[in-house]
Amino acid sequence: MMLFTKTLLSDSVKNLVLLLLFFGFISNGDALADDGYRLWLKYDRIQNATVRTSYSKSLSFIAISGNDDILNNAAKELQTGLSAMLGKQIPIVKNPVANQKGIILSVSAGAATGDGYAIEMKDGNTVVSATKEVGVLYGSFALLRHLQQHLPLEKAVGQSSPKIQLRMLNHWDNPEGTIERGYAGSSLWKWYELPETVDPRYTDYARANASIGINGTVVNNVNASARFLTAEYLPKVAALAGVFRKYGIKTYLSIHFAAPKTLGGLKTSDPLDPEVRKWWAEKTKEIYRAIPDFGGFLVKANSEGEPGPQDYGRTHADGANMLAEALAPFNGVVIWRAFVYKADPNADRFKAAYEEFAPLDGKFAKNVIVQVKNGPIDFQPREPFSPLFGNMPRTPLGMEFQLTQEYMGFATHWVYEAPLFKECLDADTYVNGKGSTVARIVDGSLHNYPLTCIAGVANTGSDRNWTGHPMAQANWYAFGRLAWDHTLSPETIAREWTQLALTTETKAVTAISDIMLRSREIYVDYNTPLGLSRPWTGSHYAPEPWQNRSSRPDWTAIYYHRADSLGLGFDRTTSGSNALQQYRPKASSAWLNAETCPLPYLLWFHHVQWSKQLSSGRNLWDELCHRFYTGADSVRWMQKQWAGVSTSVDPAIHADVSGRLAKQYKEALWWRDAWVLYLQTFSGKPIPAIYPKPDGTLQQVKESVNSYLMR
Amino acid sequence: MMLFTKTLLSDSVKNLVLLLLFFGFISNGDALADDGYRLWLKYDRIQNATVRTSYSKSLSFIAISGNDDILNNAAKELQTGLSAMLGKQIPIVKNPVANQKGIILSVSAGAATGDGYAIEMKDGNTVVSATKEVGVLYGSFALLRHLQQHLPLEKAVGQSSPKIQLRMLNHWDNPEGTIERGYAGSSLWKWYELPETVDPRYTDYARANASIGINGTVVNNVNASARFLTAEYLPKVAALAGVFRKYGIKTYLSIHFAAPKTLGGLKTSDPLDPEVRKWWAEKTKEIYRAIPDFGGFLVKANSEGEPGPQDYGRTHADGANMLAEALAPFNGVVIWRAFVYKADPNADRFKAAYEEFAPLDGKFAKNVIVQVKNGPIDFQPREPFSPLFGNMPRTPLGMEFQLTQEYMGFATHWVYEAPLFKECLDADTYVNGKGSTVARIVDGSLHNYPLTCIAGVANTGSDRNWTGHPMAQANWYAFGRLAWDHTLSPETIAREWTQLALTTETKAVTAISDIMLRSREIYVDYNTPLGLSRPWTGSHYAPEPWQNRSSRPDWTAIYYHRADSLGLGFDRTTSGSNALQQYRPKASSAWLNAETCPLPYLLWFHHVQWSKQLSSGRNLWDELCHRFYTGADSVRWMQKQWAGVSTSVDPAIHADVSGRLAKQYKEALWWRDAWVLYLQTFSGKPIPAIYPKPDGTLQQVKESVNSYLMR
Repeated sequence: MMLFTKTLLSDSVKNLVLLLLFFGFISNGDALADDGYRLWLKYDRIQNATVRTSYSKSLSFIAISGNDDILNNAAKELQTGLSAMLGKQIPIVKNPVANQKGIILSVSAGAATGDGYAIEMKDGNTVVSATKEVGVLYGSFALLRHLQQHLPLEKAVGQSSPKIQLRMLNHWDNPEGTIERGYAGSSLWKWYELPETVDPRYTDYARANASIGINGTVVNNVNASARFLTAEYLPKVAALAGVFRKYGIKTYLSIHFAAPKTLGGLKTSDPLDPEVRKWWAEKTKEIYRAIPDFGGFLVKANSEGEPGPQDYGRTHADGANMLAEALAPFNGVVIWRAFVYKADPNADRFKAAYEEFAPLDGKFAKNVIVQVKNGPIDFQPREPFSPLFGNMPRTPLGMEFQLTQEYMGFATHWVYEAPLFKECLDADTYVNGKGSTVARIVDGSLHNYPLTCIAGVANTGSDRNWTGHPMAQANWYAFGRLAWDHTLSPETIAREWTQLALTTETKAVTAISDIMLRSREIYVDYNTPLGLSRPWTGSHYAPEPWQNRSSRPDWTAIYYHRADSLGLGFDRTTSGSNALQQYRPKASSAWLNAETCPLPYLLWFHHVQWSKQLSSGRNLWDELCHRFYTGADSVRWMQKQWAGVSTSVDPAIHADVSGRLAKQYKEALWWRDAWVLYLQTFSGKPIPAIYPKPDGTLQQVKESVNSYLMR
Repeated sequence: MMLFTKTLLSDSVKNLVLLLLFFGFISNGDALADDGYRLWLKYDRIQNATVRTSYSKSLSFIAISGNDDILNNAAKELQTGLSAMLGKQIPIVKNPVANQKGIILSVSAGAATGDGYAIEMKDGNTVVSATKEVGVLYGSFALLRHLQQHLPLEKAVGQSSPKIQLRMLNHWDNPEGTIERGYAGSSLWKWYELPETVDPRYTDYARANASIGINGTVVNNVNASARFLTAEYLPKVAALAGVFRKYGIKTYLSIHFAAPKTLGGLKTSDPLDPEVRKWWAEKTKEIYRAIPDFGGFLVKANSEGEPGPQDYGRTHADGANMLAEALAPFNGVVIWRAFVYKADPNADRFKAAYEEFAPLDGKFAKNVIVQVKNGPIDFQPREPFSPLFGNMPRTPLGMEFQLTQEYMGFATHWVYEAPLFKECLDADTYVNGKGSTVARIVDGSLHNYPLTCIAGVANTGSDRNWTGHPMAQANWYAFGRLAWDHTLSPETIAREWTQLALTTETKAVTAISDIMLRSREIYVDYNTPLGLSRPWTGSHYAPEPWQNRSSRPDWTAIYYHRADSLGLGFDRTTSGSNALQQYRPKASSAWLNAETCPLPYLLWFHHVQWSKQLSSGRNLWDELCHRFYTGADSVRWMQKQWAGVSTSVDPAIHADVSGRLAKQYKEALWWRDAWVLYLQTFSGKPIPAIYPKPDGTLQQVKESVNSYLMR
């Protein structure tokens, strides 16, 4: 089960303890190293005896009635966590024990609504109650989280309900085990072994998700294989669903829109063809026979070469509604992605999703959600919010964030993403006046959406520590916490995660969360400052702002930055692509004018002359140099800050992160030099004398970048 | 460190022990499960007090002098192993402790030669000596192996030297982390993190290899990326080499033959071009600056689309010798693969390697090894030995075995490969009369090769248990043991590995090694009996004997089995391709005639009529049915046998393997039905009545197979 599923010891416990005692003595420091597997569910023994004693007195049993899987898992998790933190076994009982204080888990109608939970103190007992079993599970994890932070028990009292209904991970995992944009090993799902062999790790995955309120998972890539719809693969998916179900998580599949042809042998996949509709209806029935609580379909259609309804002259709504019809009898949902853009040399990719989807508002069936990436392009380190948000009041819009760091340094750069998520969620669309934030659209409160959804493209993989970069665990965590409650601050979440996953020492918590909170801005500064975007083509990793050749113009780097002898940036005002017209005037008013446009968004919307004086007091060229240099230099600050917590963090994790920070610093210099030297060929201006010279020539930087682009 | 590098506990040992004590109580059975990470280096505490006491008295210290990395690691490993097995810390000391008995590690000229070691008892001490540090390391692991089997200490006395000089793993690992033909997760090498972050797992990889005498590793795929030769990647490779070196393991690279063009910017990669030769000489110097003990290059050239010297009208020898010249100053070697075959519809792929390479005998530089796959085709479940063995007396031929189960059920079929390795090594080529075994060619004794080499294509990956199927660890182990001493029997190795990795209970050891020893023959029976081969095209996994379309004829399945209305099999006698002529008459005499040809090789060499009576007393069709049915049925025997050891093997490993066996049984039926139903369309004969009917129609089998071939 749980935490210790994967220890290395097979013999009796007595033997084990003896062994470990000796290993303790002969340890050279990392013998008992933390490998990060436990994530934020570490449950280290509480060292402070006062706290421990106080908890022990009040939490001496866990009472549940009935034999529900989810409730049992709530009790088991409490037992696992409490026993480890308190250093004594806490029993699971059917009824509260007389003359003792403990935890009572209760499903009752009067408690918190929906997936929510309440924690109350009653007669000295701590009562976790909810109207649904899964609410009790969430409440139990909330209680554990509270105790992991060593807070006074009575302060755990309160109620909490999630603001968004479907809180999902999207796995871009392929059937052969690779992960598109995965940087933490291979897929967690062992398709060849399933369903006969069920890796115990699936349970730990479910525990981790349930602990932060995630209640849905799409197990396969949106560039979908039809394999998953076959009779051969459905039992495999069902085996995963069987594990996840016990933690309140529904399983979804990405579907291949052409499956009626490729799998069903039909002549068409036209969504208005009766045979096609019948095929999907039958296939959906088959799925629900295998997985009665199946969640639904995620669809990438007519996007980057994937098949879709437009292949038959139909609309996205036609395609989505066909699937919706098949799913409706089972209360399944269609999550239809709005990530579309055409290879049109005269178009602005920024505008594509809006242009295709906004006219379809109101045309989707009731059980369809349109899932929109946070920004109009593609998960850049900073983007303005997608103009679709607010412009489809009659269509539930779901949010798609990317946890995996496709454009944020893979697993070698430390970027805490909560500020990015929050920036988008807090953005005001002004569609119903001030306060019409993206968050209020996504949580349904602004347009009274009957369905609400938020998805994170998972950063998990088979690496022992789940996420490659140990600190990237925080992005999974933060996503879940914000999916539950988008009003939480990045700082609150950073401090909370640090305490759960790394250390409870206050100074270290502050030092680490300081790094986290600055990390994204630092990355933006050396990577894509002032509203630059997409300086990648092949690798999505190494700097390639010079990339000017591709099968389509919007797959070059120069398409995005538009550097020339006059200046830099993409004019999206009326004199340019006029993409800004897709926003409400109040939302875009500051952006419309280069004089007032906040610097973080400047080059998203304006082609700015190199000598243009900015609000910072520097001209554009100098400001760019300032950002690249100070951004890169700030990684040294991260290194120093991290060095300062060496005694507060497990040595293995500390060493691992130190190594990654060294790499990050090296690569921050790479980015700095790549951009500065490349842009200098347009600006013709000197690097301000206060900065050191680049470490090499442009040619040298290109050569090292090319190493990462070779077969 | 070592063993426990990856436990899940970060707090103090005291805390840990308390924790584990409680977890022992609340365990639901797999709380302390063995995840297989420790491989055969488990060092479980010896339960038998007599044995433990006896060892404790004689092994109370480990004495080493000097400060050599390899010696230190030998001592550390002994300390780790002994302390764990004996339940008390064994100190490492500079000098033997008076009035105590212990282990003395000694490097001295008189001891075992080469990489060998001697273990002696002197004045009550156990002395492990060798002429080289690495010999002491090997001797230490041998001693530990002995103790892990609870054998009397004095029986450890003896000498051992490896019969082959270069004992290598070949990793087909790609720069982005995928592994060609890998079924155990992603690559162990984290190229993006290296060299700044050095995963502690690299050390455990090196320990495992050193423990079985492996002394070389090629870290990248033979379909090679030129990345590894860049200034960006060499420091990464050097970081790995730095870890491996301390365990006596040299690092090698697969090279991309066209690198002078693609990486160096030259106009040609012609091996006779002076600029090209200079480029390789300079590149080689650069490599040795980074890795002073670099081993050399492995080359796949003019094979399956890879570039090579033939692109310029040059020979394999021209290509190899150019690289040999660059490596010679540093004592590096070129390992040039003989895996070549042309897309010639009239040729027999069986003959291709011989035809291209045999004429080049004597034309290779001194530091070139030609590496030959065990069979003439490609790692099939059973192949006759490659006719190249014995036909290049003036060219050192290395052996290439495949550990990863590309054609043996990936990670879901249990196939112990030692019998396959042994079958090839023991085959008699008769080139210098009787007893001219392949082993004697590979170990150099027959032709007095100055260089000897044996390679296993690794089955390792990032999966926690290293090899996906827990039992596939035995193939890595067996390869290493046979590379050291090819006279060991598969049974000896199976029993040894089982004791080290699974259980020391005698009955269980016998039961498990029984499964292992029969497993390959069982697989052959349901997969490719009687000399069938290569019933795959796309997947190398699911049965596809019907596959008849490909870009080249030798990439179809029908090319290999040649089923028609008359019979089955590939005629390689004089009436056919005459491939048998490539063997010495005495080696091939039994194979030449369908009447005398041993059944396991029958269809390799003969097109046999369906009604032909075989030596088994059955006709061909009935014999095929017999093999497919009994083969599949034997998996049930494996399941029963495995069920019988449930109390002797760690429960997590037991459950894992049970799941895989269930899958294997399902897929054995799949293979049986696929072949029988497909071949029946040619033979027109009924399945003998003693067998049950297939589980479905041919069409149904094809449909389920197609699931595995979809994008």
